[in-house]
Amino acid sequence: MNNEAERKKYGFTLPAQAGLDDVVLDLAERWGADAFRDSDGTLLSDSITSLGYDIYSTLCLIRADQEWNKAHPEDNQQKYLFSTPQTARDTTMEIDILARYSPEQYRIDEINDCKKYWEVVNRTTGEVVPTTDWDYANGIVTVRNCAKWNVYSVNFLVYQIWETTSMYNHLTNDWGDKPHQSGIDPRKKATREHLAKFLDKWLETHPDTDFVRFTSMAYQFPIITDPHHRTLYQDWYGYLDCMSAQALDEFEEKKGYRLRPNDIVEDGYFNSTDRVPSKAYLDWIEFIHEFMVEWASQCVKQVHDAGKKAVLFYCDHWIGTEPYRPAFQQIGYDGIIGPCINGREVRRIADVPGDLVKELRLYPYFFPVDLLDKPTFSEGGDPVADCKKYWMWIRRAMLRKLVHRIGYGGYLDLAIKYPDFIDYLECQTKEFYGICEHTDFTPVENAPFKVGILNAWGAHRSWGFDQTWPEGGITESLSGQPFDLVWMNFDDIRKGIPKDIGVIINLGLAGTAWSGGSNWADPKVVAAIRAFVDGGGGLVGVLDPTAHENGGAYYQLWDVLGVQKEVGLSNDTKKVIPTDLVEGHFLAADFVDGVPRLGKHVQGVYPCLESTQIIAKDADANVTIATNDFGRGRGVYLAGFQLGAEQNRLLQRAIWYAAGREKEMETRWYTDNIHTEIAGYPETGKYIVINNSNDPQTTVISDGASERRTVELTANASKWFDLAGNEIEQADAPGAMHEEAASV
Amino acid sequence: MNNEAERKKYGFTLPAQAGLDDVVLDLAERWGADAFRDSDGTLLSDSITSLGYDIYSTLCLIRADQEWNKAHPEDNQQKYLFSTPQTARDTTMEIDILARYSPEQYRIDEINDCKKYWEVVNRTTGEVVPTTDWDYANGIVTVRNCAKWNVYSVNFLVYQIWETTSMYNHLTNDWGDKPHQSGIDPRKKATREHLAKFLDKWLETHPDTDFVRFTSMAYQFPIITDPHHRTLYQDWYGYLDCMSAQALDEFEEKKGYRLRPNDIVEDGYFNSTDRVPSKAYLDWIEFIHEFMVEWASQCVKQVHDAGKKAVLFYCDHWIGTEPYRPAFQQIGYDGIIGPCINGREVRRIADVPGDLVKELRLYPYFFPVDLLDKPTFSEGGDPVADCKKYWMWIRRAMLRKLVHRIGYGGYLDLAIKYPDFIDYLECQTKEFYGICEHTDFTPVENAPFKVGILNAWGAHRSWGFDQTWPEGGITESLSGQPFDLVWMNFDDIRKGIPKDIGVIINLGLAGTAWSGGSNWADPKVVAAIRAFVDGGGGLVGVLDPTAHENGGAYYQLWDVLGVQKEVGLSNDTKKVIPTDLVEGHFLAADFVDGVPRLGKHVQGVYPCLESTQIIAKDADANVTIATNDFGRGRGVYLAGFQLGAEQNRLLQRAIWYAAGREKEMETRWYTDNIHTEIAGYPETGKYIVINNSNDPQTTVISDGASERRTVELTANASKWFDLAGNEIEQADAPGAMHEEAASV
Repeated sequence: MNNEAERKKYGFTLPAQAGLDDVVLDLAERWGADAFRDSDGTLLSDSITSLGYDIYSTLCLIRADQEWNKAHPEDNQQKYLFSTPQTARDTTMEIDILARYSPEQYRIDEINDCKKYWEVVNRTTGEVVPTTDWDYANGIVTVRNCAKWNVYSVNFLVYQIWETTSMYNHLTNDWGDKPHQSGIDPRKKATREHLAKFLDKWLETHPDTDFVRFTSMAYQFPIITDPHHRTLYQDWYGYLDCMSAQALDEFEEKKGYRLRPNDIVEDGYFNSTDRVPSKAYLDWIEFIHEFMVEWASQCVKQVHDAGKKAVLFYCDHWIGTEPYRPAFQQIGYDGIIGPCINGREVRRIADVPGDLVKELRLYPYFFPVDLLDKPTFSEGGDPVADCKKYWMWIRRAMLRKLVHRIGYGGYLDLAIKYPDFIDYLECQTKEFYGICEHTDFTPVENAPFKVGILNAWGAHRSWGFDQTWPEGGITESLSGQPFDLVWMNFDDIRKGIPKDIGVIINLGLAGTAWSGGSNWADPKVVAAIRAFVDGGGGLVGVLDPTAHENGGAYYQLWDVLGVQKEVGLSNDTKKVIPTDLVEGHFLAADFVDGVPRLGKHVQGVYPCLESTQIIAKDADANVTIATNDFGRGRGVYLAGFQLGAEQNRLLQRAIWYAAGREKEMETRWYTDNIHTEIAGYPETGKYIVINNSNDPQTTVISDGASERRTVELTANASKWFDLAGNEIEQADAPGAMHEEAASV
Repeated sequence: MNNEAERKKYGFTLPAQAGLDDVVLDLAERWGADAFRDSDGTLLSDSITSLGYDIYSTLCLIRADQEWNKAHPEDNQQKYLFSTPQTARDTTMEIDILARYSPEQYRIDEINDCKKYWEVVNRTTGEVVPTTDWDYANGIVTVRNCAKWNVYSVNFLVYQIWETTSMYNHLTNDWGDKPHQSGIDPRKKATREHLAKFLDKWLETHPDTDFVRFTSMAYQFPIITDPHHRTLYQDWYGYLDCMSAQALDEFEEKKGYRLRPNDIVEDGYFNSTDRVPSKAYLDWIEFIHEFMVEWASQCVKQVHDAGKKAVLFYCDHWIGTEPYRPAFQQIGYDGIIGPCINGREVRRIADVPGDLVKELRLYPYFFPVDLLDKPTFSEGGDPVADCKKYWMWIRRAMLRKLVHRIGYGGYLDLAIKYPDFIDYLECQTKEFYGICEHTDFTPVENAPFKVGILNAWGAHRSWGFDQTWPEGGITESLSGQPFDLVWMNFDDIRKGIPKDIGVIINLGLAGTAWSGGSNWADPKVVAAIRAFVDGGGGLVGVLDPTAHENGGAYYQLWDVLGVQKEVGLSNDTKKVIPTDLVEGHFLAADFVDGVPRLGKHVQGVYPCLESTQIIAKDADANVTIATNDFGRGRGVYLAGFQLGAEQNRLLQRAIWYAAGREKEMETRWYTDNIHTEIAGYPETGKYIVINNSNDPQTTVISDGASERRTVELTANASKWFDLAGNEIEQADAPGAMHEEAASV
């Protein structure tokens, strides 16, 4: 391990591979690496670990000892599934409960008492079938006394016999008859004790390891597959794979009530994070989190006691760790690593509270295909093009909130077949190091007000998905915008909106957790937001903001937003408010060829107030962009959003306008060319201007002292300046390598 | 009056006008008129009434005696309005309750006790504000102890001081300072007695009148206007204008519970017919109907006692008469007349049960502009083009169910300025008389099974609107299709689906009365329809069929239809059912250039079963046409519908296919050219082939004996044949005149 005193604040992690010693050393030099890592399927040879670099070793405890796992099938990980809904054609029916699921992935739980832990549900009536009316044998549940033509399905427990990440890696890399790995549950006493011993032994037998890279702790987010290995269900935030008969019993003991299997199965919706969470599901999350904090703390202590550091891979088996919850800090991790393909994923790591070393595992992963099965490091793939496209979004997000390290993963022998990719990474890493040095991790100067993002999850799901097209358009755009963001849930609103919030954004489809669903029927919530806007605040609504049918209104804050939505239930009410477009509106000032595309936008929105200012309508005369004054504040409505330079600027304008501070927007840290952005760091006395496009750009910038200067940038390039506007020479000009990336 | 014995079964009603005697006589000859009528704003001179034609005299009792109406403001008609929802910015607020409404149309009720009959409602919480917390004076309701930032509005009673039809005619014809007429409420004792005397007197003083054309009885369907005379709310089926303080009290007495004002106002939705009706609203309809049957019976008796006949204009003040309810027959009308612009409106009159003379008042009305304010008989208008367009749809509906009479209304002096219109009507009337004579009002031969149309209203709203584009596309298409239709509500389903039903159609947007809303959560309903389809029946779903979130399903009969809809709450569930289009499906056999347009169709529909057959998808891969086998029956899904020849055929195929009898479709009464249709009348031994298009068409027909023949038709023409296939010569060839009508 390097001397701590000499350590830079930043670094690069290189996925090394046994047998490629020379290559590894050469690349470490070119990419500025200070650490090597292994990956699932690769090993580091002694010759590599002894080179003097930091060694990151992946460890996935729950599948590390397959012999133990095989010997303890009763401790394999469990989950609730539900059988394919089946219509009763007679009063007796047979249900092949595993029919829709992969038999390679799951084994029906025949160990625990099915009459205690399963439910047969009449989905038509919602009634649970009495246990005397059904039996289980050989994969089949036989139900008697069915109500004919009602729909039934079974909520049943399985053991997961093929662990999800192992399954994904196996199938993606075509590992053939390599054995399937299972996962084990540390909640089980014997297993927990075994894993503690195993970890101590592992630490002892890995003297070269400096950082234990937990990938991750115990419970994977759910990826449920069908018999053809196709994904049936996937939720990055889902708490399905942390179930067991024992956990269900312990929950009852701890929380004072028993969960029904359907509290988890939720009639097949599985508490998808898109859904407004029930109290039972929130309690379940908390229950799992409490266990994880306790168990992970013990693992980290063992690592520390061995003189090593512990880092969490915030993906795969991250469930229960909850980096945005306060108790996460008790675990004592030294660092956190996240996969990162865009700006949102930069921020999901960078914004994690606490004094941790934060690292991004960038894409493309050194695998033949990507997550969508598109070729990357294989015939037909273009890893440089992919990497450039991602970097354009990643760079702008890093300028708002920086991480300490970047790195890659996978098989180096695949990557080195692409020399242009090797060259490109040299450029990318240098640009990253430049950002680290010129900012020195000091804060960027943002707008003088904070922007709240309001949904049913709040801070615990910071940088969670949003529903603008493509997935997460608005939050992706915000990841690189000059605003300090605060993720809020409805309880935060009920407690009182903090004074430093200038604008609240509510974005999502009607009824979802992102819009908020029935939270909007709470008088406290609507009153608090009306008071906030009336006092000068702004509400930016996207898709179906504040949507919940109540008291004659569908968008509850129609009076703030100035718009309402017709869903087919009030067509007899004519919409007679004038619908002319306003001319020369602040929001429209940077439109290039008319209104920018807003993706798959919401239909049926109309102005509902005389005061509504309509900025854009679609071909069917639905409102797509509108604003409205409310007291001393403003509402802004966007029917959709799609990524792009024009849309980024539209959103930026919408926020400044909603805050009632649009006059200040152009005065400081502003670029007049929408393809460029600026970020200023008062503490280091430097600023950067970036070109997000594939063409050379000229832009007039306003710096932090409102000085205006003209900056020229080649395609995709960035330039650093001191506060006097003198360009800071960089060793290399990484911009040249960025040409032809996808534009932001 | 002509001798009854000589009377033909059919006839034509001409809107005559004083001072145009020669013209009237000439047109009566050319158009084959047997009756003259007056209109609102025209009178018949003695010289006209003495010509020996039947005389139809319009009578609108409730506005006939304006002096009485003026002298009895307490008996003027009333309704509940609700004030513009207003957000409480303080704990006290003033609400200008009439602000959004026309002060020319309404006067606030200051006669009845507002504390008894009004409600101030906190729309945010749904709570009714205690009467001690508000007061009314001079148009303003002052509310105290408001919950700040909650939304309030007042449900209040008004008198309607400008009667709706009078207001419409006045504004449309620019009548300037002609006095505004009010309407009076026959529920009030003194007024009822006065109207009875007035009617007797009127009958006495109109000796030339043969038919009293009630236009209509007492209560208009609501057209609520704003201060600029723009329509705020309109519902052809709405029961708002039959309200009064007295009616509310009597309702309580009769039904055993008191309606809240909000039972009628419904937070501003006013029980629009698009909404699933509440029990309270259905009770209210019944209560009004009971009164109307009783009062209208008395009026009709007076007419009969005077030796005249009574006909009902099934529009304007038709509310409460309910021609599709059994008690309507008790009233004793001799005839019923309906305005008619398309096939749906033909059938709304033609299908009314009972032995009545049925008449259509065709469009264009002889007014300067039409209902949408588009010029007709004024500069820029083209009444012939309008008339031809309507007739193409009317003719095909008449071939399924015929009426006895047609006619027009309005000002003859306007119409005679358009000689080509006069010529066109000569042709139209002759074609109508031909249909009457060749069919002799005997039944057409339809498919050998009935088609049910299922919604929350059923038979009582036969030919009510539907939500396919443009308004009523599917039902318009069905009005001329070879199917016997049965309008059903969910109680009809609960009672048991009749054996002669072969196919049930459910069409409408989610949550509406047309789709059915929460009725789909009733296990009885879904079980009955599943059993019906399993036994060989068909379910055709259009837009959002069977939509209601319950038990993990949004479309409840996904198992029958084979499709489900994603509304943003289950995106984590991947849709892995194969989505290839089936080749050569029966439904697609007549597609000309690919899939016909389906108008504004529903988004987010996907196949949910392996058995689903996908016939069409839109550009976003949403399913737009699909079928599925279920037991011995079938489901068919259409995401939308739009009028046209291809779509008519698609619907026809969908119904035969759903019924499982697609092999029979082409054997009898079938034309292979989709621009043509055929209708056969076994009792008269004749059949007709029509050309719905603007081009000449050649078609191969199958007659009732499965004989195939080729028929040639000029644009828009029709030809009659005997069962041997011999063409029946017609005096004139009306087809020639039809050229360039809009195609069906």
